[in-house]
Amino acid sequence: MPKVAIAGYGITKFSKEDLKIESILRNSTKNLFDSNPNLNQKDIDAVLVSTNNNSKYLSAILSESVGIKPKIAHSIESLCNSGTNSIVSAYAYISSGLADTVLVAGAERFDSPGQILEWDQLRGEFKHPIFWASIFSRSYKRNFSLTDEELAIVSVKNHKQSLNNPNALTHQQFSIEDVLNSKKITDDLRLLDCSRPCTGSASILLTSEQNCKKFTDTPIWISGIGQKTTSASFTKNIAFDQMESTKIAANTALKMSNHNHKEIDAIEVHDAFSVCEPMALDSMGFTEPGKGIQMIKDAYETEDLRINPRGGLIGTGHPLGATGIAQTIEIVQQLQGSADKRQIDDAKVGLIHNMSAGATSSTILVLEK
Amino acid sequence: MPKVAIAGYGITKFSKEDLKIESILRNSTKNLFDSNPNLNQKDIDAVLVSTNNNSKYLSAILSESVGIKPKIAHSIESLCNSGTNSIVSAYAYISSGLADTVLVAGAERFDSPGQILEWDQLRGEFKHPIFWASIFSRSYKRNFSLTDEELAIVSVKNHKQSLNNPNALTHQQFSIEDVLNSKKITDDLRLLDCSRPCTGSASILLTSEQNCKKFTDTPIWISGIGQKTTSASFTKNIAFDQMESTKIAANTALKMSNHNHKEIDAIEVHDAFSVCEPMALDSMGFTEPGKGIQMIKDAYETEDLRINPRGGLIGTGHPLGATGIAQTIEIVQQLQGSADKRQIDDAKVGLIHNMSAGATSSTILVLEK
Repeated sequence: MPKVAIAGYGITKFSKEDLKIESILRNSTKNLFDSNPNLNQKDIDAVLVSTNNNSKYLSAILSESVGIKPKIAHSIESLCNSGTNSIVSAYAYISSGLADTVLVAGAERFDSPGQILEWDQLRGEFKHPIFWASIFSRSYKRNFSLTDEELAIVSVKNHKQSLNNPNALTHQQFSIEDVLNSKKITDDLRLLDCSRPCTGSASILLTSEQNCKKFTDTPIWISGIGQKTTSASFTKNIAFDQMESTKIAANTALKMSNHNHKEIDAIEVHDAFSVCEPMALDSMGFTEPGKGIQMIKDAYETEDLRINPRGGLIGTGHPLGATGIAQTIEIVQQLQGSADKRQIDDAKVGLIHNMSAGATSSTILVLEK
Repeated sequence: MPKVAIAGYGITKFSKEDLKIESILRNSTKNLFDSNPNLNQKDIDAVLVSTNNNSKYLSAILSESVGIKPKIAHSIESLCNSGTNSIVSAYAYISSGLADTVLVAGAERFDSPGQILEWDQLRGEFKHPIFWASIFSRSYKRNFSLTDEELAIVSVKNHKQSLNNPNALTHQQFSIEDVLNSKKITDDLRLLDCSRPCTGSASILLTSEQNCKKFTDTPIWISGIGQKTTSASFTKNIAFDQMESTKIAANTALKMSNHNHKEIDAIEVHDAFSVCEPMALDSMGFTEPGKGIQMIKDAYETEDLRINPRGGLIGTGHPLGATGIAQTIEIVQQLQGSADKRQIDDAKVGLIHNMSAGATSSTILVLEK
């Protein structure tokens, strides 16, 4: 299979700004062009927009507004992992030869319609993600004898790590007590256990091996891809203390990349809620079932930035359609050695975990230098 | 590039039914499974949903409801050519090796939000497609000295041809006078010049050369693909009597397929409005500029079904996200010799033209036996 490189990116600060989706999309794309002086509009064969926004024809609108006349242009939606679905589509287009260079632009408004799972309610489930997150939290705590206090370390770590991320929604440090004393949303979920919806965008440029030298001296390669949708309803999950789709996707991606868990230097985990981070680490095979929280605690205590170096979704904010792309940009920066105060020493291989709707679908990407 | 086959399809009657989008989507997919007894849910690696509907996570919902657990699952939107964008994505997934077999399911409700171009209004344009269609009609008539009466042949022919299409929204024959006397929508557009929004779905199965024998003895191959987005706003078109994106896409697709115009036995043209059919024939190079209407008149008079054999969008109805897929199914049936009373003798090569928003983007596919 031909190699596909990430050859550029653009990102802007996450916020609560009330902007039109077209403006949000353009912001990170403009940043991508500004930071890639060798990139010309004519180089781009495809523009894929990742969003949950209801506006139509956004790929054509973005293309027109930045002067691109692409061959391929459409929007892609799969709730919270729309971003990595778009990246995998770009990979397929380049790898198949239908496109040489693809712009993937993700954007969302703070009031995204993707935050409410209307269709779940029709089937006896709850329409707000806090309900599946509560059930995950209760199951995970009970099955592995964990306390709210122990789970709170996820939020403490990720908020701390976001202090060094200039694009994070806010920059604030919290203690275990702060998390436990924050507003109780459900019996098993506090406000500080939740990632915050926000306005944000992130864009990346993917290209073929042949073209990448034009754009960058430090291409980052997509060496592993795994995707799985097990259902749409989270109650169809085989268990509420693990993520089946994540497990399957991780196995596929690691196998394709020829890397094992020990070789992964940086991990972007989809911590929509605190419990998701240890559950995902377990399910991806970084730890035995129930041991994810110990791995997180150890990392926090030794100031090892390996897990969610940019602060995760909890620390950074969660603009749905942009999240998977922002996660990918963090790994690109880590592998290029340009992550500033967040830099993990000598990072060579990184992994992205991006999922939707109670882990009913997951994408895993493995990137390397 | 590895070969990609269309190995099955499902379609149901277009209607004005007020159904949930999930039900509409499932209808044609169920028809696809019913008519392909060798197809098992486990064969399907990717489920791509084509729609303008605002509901989220439809690929996962469809997958769950029909028992598929795909690797890749997302929705694709590009207004009226969402369908062919999804087919091209399926092609890329198969051709790249990321998937072997892909289900593409398109669906729309009669009240689709894709019918109103809200974003156009922000930029001094008109939000309803009848406005660009009116300007196209006036320009085309003036520049090529044509009359309303001459353009009316498109609607007469396509309604007549739809009489033999069991899935058409209605079955009614009209005369030139009927078209001219139908309700005046604008100075240059009558009601019978317009395709009708409707509820409908259409699904197809794409697979690799290696797998296709499992599903069909008569695979149809995608031998040419061309796509182009020139802008989002129709006033950015270089002229209002031709379709630049269609011209570019047709050149690319025909070149890739190694076929010339004379070898095309069946043409599905995106006749959202009467004027679109001759304009598209001109722009694709089937005729000299302005001569498309003569080609249509000749076909009508000689009972040659080559142009829009199923009745086009005007005769059949236009369920946005399903249209490009329904067009593709028509060509598949023609090439397989299963088009019943619509059958074109000895059809070997067919072409699909599917476009969006005043021809600001176009897809052309060439299929062959």
